Amino acid sequence: MPTEKRLPRRQFLVAGAGVVGALTTGALQSAAQDAKKPEVEAPVGKAPDVKVPEAKALPPYVSWKRADAVIVHSPETIEMKRGYGGTSVITPNDVLYIRNNVPAPDAAIVADRDAWKLSVEGVGTPKVLTVSDLKALGLESIASVLQCSGNGRAFFDHKPSGTKWTVGAAGCVVWSGVPVRVVVEALGGITPGAGFMTSTGGETLPDGLDPKTLIVERSVPTGAIQEALLAWEMNGEPLSLAHGGPLRIVIPGYHGVNNIKYIKRLAFTPVESDAKIHKTGYRLHAVDAKSAPEQPSMWEMPVKSWVTSPLKDAKTGRVQITGVAFGGINAVNAVEVSVDGGKTWAAARFVGPDLGRYAWRQFVLAADLKPGSYRLVSRAIDAKGTVQPEDFPTNGSGYGHNGWRAHGVDVTVV
Amino acid sequence: MPTEKRLPRRQFLVAGAGVVGALTTGALQSAAQDAKKPEVEAPVGKAPDVKVPEAKALPPYVSWKRADAVIVHSPETIEMKRGYGGTSVITPNDVLYIRNNVPAPDAAIVADRDAWKLSVEGVGTPKVLTVSDLKALGLESIASVLQCSGNGRAFFDHKPSGTKWTVGAAGCVVWSGVPVRVVVEALGGITPGAGFMTSTGGETLPDGLDPKTLIVERSVPTGAIQEALLAWEMNGEPLSLAHGGPLRIVIPGYHGVNNIKYIKRLAFTPVESDAKIHKTGYRLHAVDAKSAPEQPSMWEMPVKSWVTSPLKDAKTGRVQITGVAFGGINAVNAVEVSVDGGKTWAAARFVGPDLGRYAWRQFVLAADLKPGSYRLVSRAIDAKGTVQPEDFPTNGSGYGHNGWRAHGVDVTVV
Repeated sequence: MPTEKRLPRRQFLVAGAGVVGALTTGALQSAAQDAKKPEVEAPVGKAPDVKVPEAKALPPYVSWKRADAVIVHSPETIEMKRGYGGTSVITPNDVLYIRNNVPAPDAAIVADRDAWKLSVEGVGTPKVLTVSDLKALGLESIASVLQCSGNGRAFFDHKPSGTKWTVGAAGCVVWSGVPVRVVVEALGGITPGAGFMTSTGGETLPDGLDPKTLIVERSVPTGAIQEALLAWEMNGEPLSLAHGGPLRIVIPGYHGVNNIKYIKRLAFTPVESDAKIHKTGYRLHAVDAKSAPEQPSMWEMPVKSWVTSPLKDAKTGRVQITGVAFGGINAVNAVEVSVDGGKTWAAARFVGPDLGRYAWRQFVLAADLKPGSYRLVSRAIDAKGTVQPEDFPTNGSGYGHNGWRAHGVDVTVV
Repeated sequence: MPTEKRLPRRQFLVAGAGVVGALTTGALQSAAQDAKKPEVEAPVGKAPDVKVPEAKALPPYVSWKRADAVIVHSPETIEMKRGYGGTSVITPNDVLYIRNNVPAPDAAIVADRDAWKLSVEGVGTPKVLTVSDLKALGLESIASVLQCSGNGRAFFDHKPSGTKWTVGAAGCVVWSGVPVRVVVEALGGITPGAGFMTSTGGETLPDGLDPKTLIVERSVPTGAIQEALLAWEMNGEPLSLAHGGPLRIVIPGYHGVNNIKYIKRLAFTPVESDAKIHKTGYRLHAVDAKSAPEQPSMWEMPVKSWVTSPLKDAKTGRVQITGVAFGGINAVNAVEVSVDGGKTWAAARFVGPDLGRYAWRQFVLAADLKPGSYRLVSRAIDAKGTVQPEDFPTNGSGYGHNGWRAHGVDVTVV
């Protein structure tokens, strides 16, 4: 893979100066580009007044992505177009979204994958393990939805800053690696009193700045280790640099930001990380409030669904309405579809194999539609009976939108 | 995709002259190349005296395959290297094997996928349906093992002609399409007395030859329609030309040759096809016998498994022995691993999600191995209790090898 171009120092300094809601260099680049670029038509399924930046070329480190299937918001934020993920449960690697908080490290780190080192701390016998050591400890694979906290941001009316994702900052993939619990057992268990699992990314940070303002480090409650995986493979391929290779932690059911790429340190700690991205970043707060540690962190994902086809036009007669539905931290149990914007609902059918609690399900509803205009929406119900809500509260950074109403699409049947 | 080069007429004429055991132009090319090329070291897991042809470059129509992960036997026969399919259940598109009996049609046929036509015959209301029509009828997805009848041919001692596949003419993928039974129901059901479902491929055949000698057409018992799919998608991507796009029939549990690519005709017939590839091709027969219609056809696949890692060396201590196991027409229930060539066995553990009856399962056995030489073998047991056999009978064309002994690998632990 080509070597990632280093970001100019100047942009790091801007980030270091503290821009609320735009912590990251990627977001800064995106914001800078948004200001310069002309705007083009709204994507399918978006209100026509929501503007998106003009299409950009794929950056070299992800030149292998399918250019026709993605929207390049910035070099660090690349969205899968709605309806381009197929109906085969698993999202292909070459269309899966990209969201890097800091540019990817040099591609040299994937030249000798097995040599990558992880420091495990806060256990009986702290130790530095290579990927090769981890591979000898165990093997598991798990399917899970990977979704950015900001997926759906474009559907908020208050125009929060940050990438205007609609539905394409999400995918369902299969990971292979060693369970964190197996590693912890091999190292004598978690130190008593450690309530959090803290993961640190191996991105290269510039000298002369407080690393806490830029380092990609997140804590989650220790309970999450039951399902967490230290993964070296995604969808049967060695984990690419773009998606966090050689080693990434996967915490099924948790928002993407917690699935730290290029993980170099896994620590069981009594307190949460004080890195800016964790301490105040990725928090749900009111539009007029500043981010703060006491606000909810973007941890567990809630139930969500959306329609993937048709998105614009359909031929009168039998129309197969398809989409994806997932329960986030819980399994998804059912999904309903409405063709009249939510006035009436019909149960959709799940399609294909069930890949487990953290995977999404494809769904289909066959509807006989006469010529006319239709508003297609879907709402999922998780295994605890929680129904996907009609709306999601406005919040400062535009996180966590799972309201079914805004995710609907207007379709003309002719 | 680039336009497929047309095969010179001369080669078709040779095939038309009737070469037993080398029905296909691909096999003819391969055989011609074998005669000229120097031979190189046997692949991992092969007896050292089994020669394979020198590595060739990827042909243009599959230039998107991972060159490092495949063995190009000929332009129409490309094998996945052992151990390159990952441990994430699904085989990535860019490593999945290729076996075309006749060169793929011109890429023009995937320029407007929805316009591809299928003639459905032997039903209440015979009809020509486009892919667009089929998409309106229904949607299902299914995971299944795709495996060439000749997979394992290299393990026979009598050196049958044909591609010397070891284990890499197999993969597990997810297909999306419309169930054949839904199409049949929509067209008034199967004509009484039709015991076979006959699929015809849309390959371009040269003028002036009896098409029956070259056409890719196979019959299967009508009962197979319960699970059969007319598929337009594989692993979330529109079905590539190389793998049979725009439309392929998928008959889960049946050998690859029955899963006709570029399907242009689906007929329910009282008798089996008289095309050469069906009438006498793909038959199990004694080495000194000629192929004949009364011999067993390569229809349902039996239970099978093999080790995928380690394949050569391993570090002493805990070694994770991995592999794949499937039941073919039945689900797979269990798999055992031996490190002493089959003297003693231990139950392996299935890894990751179960994608259903026709998918394979990844397995793992953690073994503590001292320095020394080991012969790793695996044997699977299907849902009916059938155990993968130690050997498989020698047969003229080298089909159907599922004997566990020959599939083993010699590993040195240091």
